[in-house]
Amino acid sequence: MSNLDKNNQSNFDTALFGLLLDRGLASNLQTQLIEALQKVFSGAHDFSGLRLPSSRVLAQELSVSRTTVVNAYDQLVSEGYLTTAPGSGTFVAHHLSHLTSPVARQSIQPPPQKWVPFHSGVPDQPLFPHRVWSRHLERAWVKPTSDLLGRPDPFGWYPLRKSIADHLSSWRKLECRPEQVLITSGASEAFDIIFRGLLEPNRIAAVEDPGWPIMREALAVSGATVEPVRIDDQGLDAEQISTKASVAIVTPSRHYPTGISMPLSRRSALLSWAKRTNGLIVEDDYDSEFRYQGQPLPSLAGLDRLQRSVYLGSFSKLLSPALRIGYLVLPESRLKPARSYMSRSGARASLIPQPALATFMESGEFAKHLRRMRRTYAKRQASLVTELTPVSDLVDVSSDPSGMHLCVPLRRKLRRLATDETITAQAIDAGLYVRALSAHSVLPNPPQGLILGYAGFDEAVLAKAANKMRHMLRRMAEQ
Amino acid sequence: MSNLDKNNQSNFDTALFGLLLDRGLASNLQTQLIEALQKVFSGAHDFSGLRLPSSRVLAQELSVSRTTVVNAYDQLVSEGYLTTAPGSGTFVAHHLSHLTSPVARQSIQPPPQKWVPFHSGVPDQPLFPHRVWSRHLERAWVKPTSDLLGRPDPFGWYPLRKSIADHLSSWRKLECRPEQVLITSGASEAFDIIFRGLLEPNRIAAVEDPGWPIMREALAVSGATVEPVRIDDQGLDAEQISTKASVAIVTPSRHYPTGISMPLSRRSALLSWAKRTNGLIVEDDYDSEFRYQGQPLPSLAGLDRLQRSVYLGSFSKLLSPALRIGYLVLPESRLKPARSYMSRSGARASLIPQPALATFMESGEFAKHLRRMRRTYAKRQASLVTELTPVSDLVDVSSDPSGMHLCVPLRRKLRRLATDETITAQAIDAGLYVRALSAHSVLPNPPQGLILGYAGFDEAVLAKAANKMRHMLRRMAEQ
Repeated sequence: MSNLDKNNQSNFDTALFGLLLDRGLASNLQTQLIEALQKVFSGAHDFSGLRLPSSRVLAQELSVSRTTVVNAYDQLVSEGYLTTAPGSGTFVAHHLSHLTSPVARQSIQPPPQKWVPFHSGVPDQPLFPHRVWSRHLERAWVKPTSDLLGRPDPFGWYPLRKSIADHLSSWRKLECRPEQVLITSGASEAFDIIFRGLLEPNRIAAVEDPGWPIMREALAVSGATVEPVRIDDQGLDAEQISTKASVAIVTPSRHYPTGISMPLSRRSALLSWAKRTNGLIVEDDYDSEFRYQGQPLPSLAGLDRLQRSVYLGSFSKLLSPALRIGYLVLPESRLKPARSYMSRSGARASLIPQPALATFMESGEFAKHLRRMRRTYAKRQASLVTELTPVSDLVDVSSDPSGMHLCVPLRRKLRRLATDETITAQAIDAGLYVRALSAHSVLPNPPQGLILGYAGFDEAVLAKAANKMRHMLRRMAEQ
Repeated sequence: MSNLDKNNQSNFDTALFGLLLDRGLASNLQTQLIEALQKVFSGAHDFSGLRLPSSRVLAQELSVSRTTVVNAYDQLVSEGYLTTAPGSGTFVAHHLSHLTSPVARQSIQPPPQKWVPFHSGVPDQPLFPHRVWSRHLERAWVKPTSDLLGRPDPFGWYPLRKSIADHLSSWRKLECRPEQVLITSGASEAFDIIFRGLLEPNRIAAVEDPGWPIMREALAVSGATVEPVRIDDQGLDAEQISTKASVAIVTPSRHYPTGISMPLSRRSALLSWAKRTNGLIVEDDYDSEFRYQGQPLPSLAGLDRLQRSVYLGSFSKLLSPALRIGYLVLPESRLKPARSYMSRSGARASLIPQPALATFMESGEFAKHLRRMRRTYAKRQASLVTELTPVSDLVDVSSDPSGMHLCVPLRRKLRRLATDETITAQAIDAGLYVRALSAHSVLPNPPQGLILGYAGFDEAVLAKAANKMRHMLRRMAEQ
């Protein structure tokens, strides 16, 4: 039997065993069964030649007497829908194939939405060790250990939490117990947990401006009120936070989207603010592994020893945003309310990827892959900077030595002729997914610039896209 | 190299490549590097005998000059931390092993929480075709198709949505387009989407009483106000819904937890209510595949042709609650607001299990497994009923021919002596996870009964647990 035939046979079985007979109807069960079977045989699928289940099996599945099925089969044989071969069973008649209309139930599948330059936050997917990863998945689930099948912990699978704690200790100078790690389905859920589970309702959160627009929306959905704080060239200044705010959400390793790294003085000021006001710091450490020159400053939460800060990490830059595995690291004092909230809201992160991710980390594949991506992205960044240097009179391409995207401010000459929004609109028309820096601000007079993701695209693709971009900018400047 | 050694080598590499040097510190980079390496060598892991990366590689990884690394290595050799073998590299000295303290970073792993009888809602896990499932997972991800790596649709992976639409058409008489199916991480997220995405804030939702306590909590978290409506022996009566409620959440196929199936007359009344008041019906069709006698009534949402109802399904009864894949089927009119909400809140369901689940369904394995579970659970239910028949003067064990648990009301004789809460407390002390029916009510004078899950436990385990239960009840009755 070919795979196609097998598939057909199981569609057929599914159709038969899923038949619904209604005991409340006036027509008897035998008549209903005959009509239902006729409908199956003349439906969208061509089942001609397939064998029917024995009358005993179908009777059991449909909870009807065997006589009902035998009589229905007999009737359908006499009507020409079915044929019998003595000793081998009952089959759908071959001449029925003309009744079927194979397109009837077909649905049009939408084309997959591709990543195009300069989509940001997209990891390089061909470079990901898919074979290794799929083997980790398979191994975790072929014969799952009892702890994978037991009552799930709403904080996530313990060995993964332990691998994350180990990773943070060696890469981010953040010492924590695995018990402080809470596996989430990503940043949006993390904000839900923080603003609904750890804090009183309607808290005011100081956020960096410019900042991550999706985060502002997720915060609104989580019931937080957003207070935008304009950053300067050292990132967020704690002095600028209003007295109403009780939370500060920051990206100290690498500000999003400008790439600014917050110096130690500002970090200390933020910790003092938290201490003085009894505030909570949320450190979104989104791209910290990708730094190409120099060493990253250790995490702010590590500096704080997780007293007044929550650390937010993610694996979406590893394989794909679709992995949907992130994590929170919580202060000891917040564990109890977090547990209470998780038991009410329920865990959202699937357990399926968790053991695979844990062994992927434990085996060293994860660190190896991060290092490989770091080298690759460094080259891609350098290449994009080189490609854009001919238009450096229009945009400032002085390289930011980290991350997965460039943020290039418009120079005054270009600013007089166009806004980043108009440039972005033109770029998108030309098939380049550029985003405007100003779209990341809600405050008046936002900075003007372009966000260009490079991590997900190889040098050839980037060169072509940069070429388009250069010509577009040059044309604008000459108008 | 053994696996252990390999593992050790990669821990070592991770430790080295993750070193953080601080350019802002007074001490120079070479001194910092020496100190950091000493710390690695005398840390929790025993790295003695392992080879260090070449000075070129480490210098590149740490973004320091090669000279810095060469000098640091030399210094450590002279201090006895490292040894060199001409032509083959630099190694951690063997005598360092006494410095390590292998227990230092060990964390105590909590024992897995096992399922015990009579936990309800737990599928039988040994019966699940783990081998087949793990192969589907591996195949989906060993060489993922471009649509798995593209921009994820917040409604979930299209082929899975199509498989679900097909399944609902054949099993639940619910005809829908794949575009109406939204993949969620489970019921809690589904309620978030409905109450935050589809409806105005602070809606009042009529819910069945008794009902699912977790749902009431999830609703509260989602910002809905709950209006409990006492059910009778035909389930919820639309006439009892107050004029303030604009949503009704029901389990018509099999009421939770009593198992009552809502007759057609009540379903029609509910549809009229929705039409008259412009209300929304949420059909939670949680166990509909498991009916052992007779045929289930088709879904309410199917009867309504998805005009005024949202259908809620789940796969947690398939493999484990930890799968965290469920779905919503939405009326066409609700697709636009749902899409807008999902783009703001972000998808929570991981993509990792989705292609595996789609091929698992397409290949017919899913329907085959459901049928197998149906047969198994039917036997388990019959066996539990038989085991409890000797105490049928105390509890009403008249079998409900469906589902994964029995709901056995206390008879008057027992009710005079004990409440279901006291019985439950005693049972839990005896290692039996029984829940009280009254705990599912918020209205006064709740019905008294015991909820006994049987699906996840084989006949031998059930017999032993039922024996304990019988003795316990008999003892109570004789006091």
